[in-house]
Amino acid sequence: MEGGTHAAPRALPYYVAFSQLLGLTVVAMTGAWLGLYRGGIAWTNTLQFNVHPLCMVIGLIFLQGDALLVYRVFRNEAKRTTKVLHGLLHVFAFIIALVGLVAMFNYHRKKGYADLYSLHSWCGIIVFVLYFVQWLVGFSFFLFPGASFSLRSRYRPQHIFFGASIFLFSVGTALLGLKEALLFKLGAKYSTFEPEGVLANVLGLLLVCFGVVVLYILTRTEWKRPSQAEEQALSMDFKTLTEGESPSSQ
Amino acid sequence: MEGGTHAAPRALPYYVAFSQLLGLTVVAMTGAWLGLYRGGIAWTNTLQFNVHPLCMVIGLIFLQGDALLVYRVFRNEAKRTTKVLHGLLHVFAFIIALVGLVAMFNYHRKKGYADLYSLHSWCGIIVFVLYFVQWLVGFSFFLFPGASFSLRSRYRPQHIFFGASIFLFSVGTALLGLKEALLFKLGAKYSTFEPEGVLANVLGLLLVCFGVVVLYILTRTEWKRPSQAEEQALSMDFKTLTEGESPSSQ
Repeated sequence: MEGGTHAAPRALPYYVAFSQLLGLTVVAMTGAWLGLYRGGIAWTNTLQFNVHPLCMVIGLIFLQGDALLVYRVFRNEAKRTTKVLHGLLHVFAFIIALVGLVAMFNYHRKKGYADLYSLHSWCGIIVFVLYFVQWLVGFSFFLFPGASFSLRSRYRPQHIFFGASIFLFSVGTALLGLKEALLFKLGAKYSTFEPEGVLANVLGLLLVCFGVVVLYILTRTEWKRPSQAEEQALSMDFKTLTEGESPSSQ
Repeated sequence: MEGGTHAAPRALPYYVAFSQLLGLTVVAMTGAWLGLYRGGIAWTNTLQFNVHPLCMVIGLIFLQGDALLVYRVFRNEAKRTTKVLHGLLHVFAFIIALVGLVAMFNYHRKKGYADLYSLHSWCGIIVFVLYFVQWLVGFSFFLFPGASFSLRSRYRPQHIFFGASIFLFSVGTALLGLKEALLFKLGAKYSTFEPEGVLANVLGLLLVCFGVVVLYILTRTEWKRPSQAEEQALSMDFKTLTEGESPSSQ
């Protein structure tokens, strides 16, 4: 992009604003669903169940999605600051998701329900473990000072791919959980277009929209964060590496 | 890529083979699930239900996924041949999915069930319409001779993004359908680790794996189809366009 490397592309802020509107709507709608049709949220008795969807939507959907957007939004801050913010948002997301996970296991134990039998639970536990591993590997490559620059450059596209995949897998898992919660409670009434069913269906579609908009922002080549002088000296583009040129040959 | 523009990257065939193994396993396992636990497939009576999952998995998962991989697999064939194959695979996928859709509406009518009330059905109908629109727009831009090269180049990244998104949305919708079929039939027995439930959960995870592997192959920059001489003269890279350089400046 000529003549304005450090200016944000014109359309980007609108897309980011739209993603935030969608993300906040999804969180608010999850809260509304749990408040209106499920008796609200508490850590005691059966209301503990409701902690799970709210925490998961805040942590593994909204915050995880926002953590992925950090490099697109903070385009002119020092790379290190952006990295730390990216890592921290993932930590918050992880802690909130952990609370959501504990709430569900706790609720199951109190009720004497079996754990980890459904497709939602299998996907959920895999997403959670992958998210943790991705964070650890990302931390050791990008924030811990040990990794060489060429190693970072080679790992970067993998980190981005698996980060985006884990995020999309989280959205899919949320849809499965939503569906499970609806079918368990509504059963045959689901087919009579009960208000709760319609609200939850709309919530499901908004979850998909949030996922798509975040992915769109992430994958626009022209919206990538421009390299700063400080990094240009340090990092190499993966493409250069794979094209078989050594950085010194440039 | 230096010194081997037309040779396939070394690892690519293994990933493609793995994706086909996963895709065929998913189709075979769907067949096995319907055969072992749902009484097989027929166009008459209740067995018509079973036509739906099998058609959708063959059409909107396996064939759609393979249609996306065509440009990675056929690297040295004429661009036009590859395009036609890409378009044709999508047509086959669409027709098979249409049969699956008709089977479900037909089954619902015979049974007197309501249509389009669940999140799975909402997602499914949206995926189906988007798939059709994407095909039509893709056809008019890339196969119909009217569109200019610059228009094609500007639309290409959008076509790729929405194609991949629709594919992933199809995988998510399949997971929702699988879950629905399990909960409707197994109900509380799902939590006792019934063989059908376990088989279907594994099928769900394999669906996710197929989606991830196809997406991985699609998104590796270094695995993109190299430009042929014939296209180099005609098409311009989107990046070049947005960077404000004319292709002749290279």
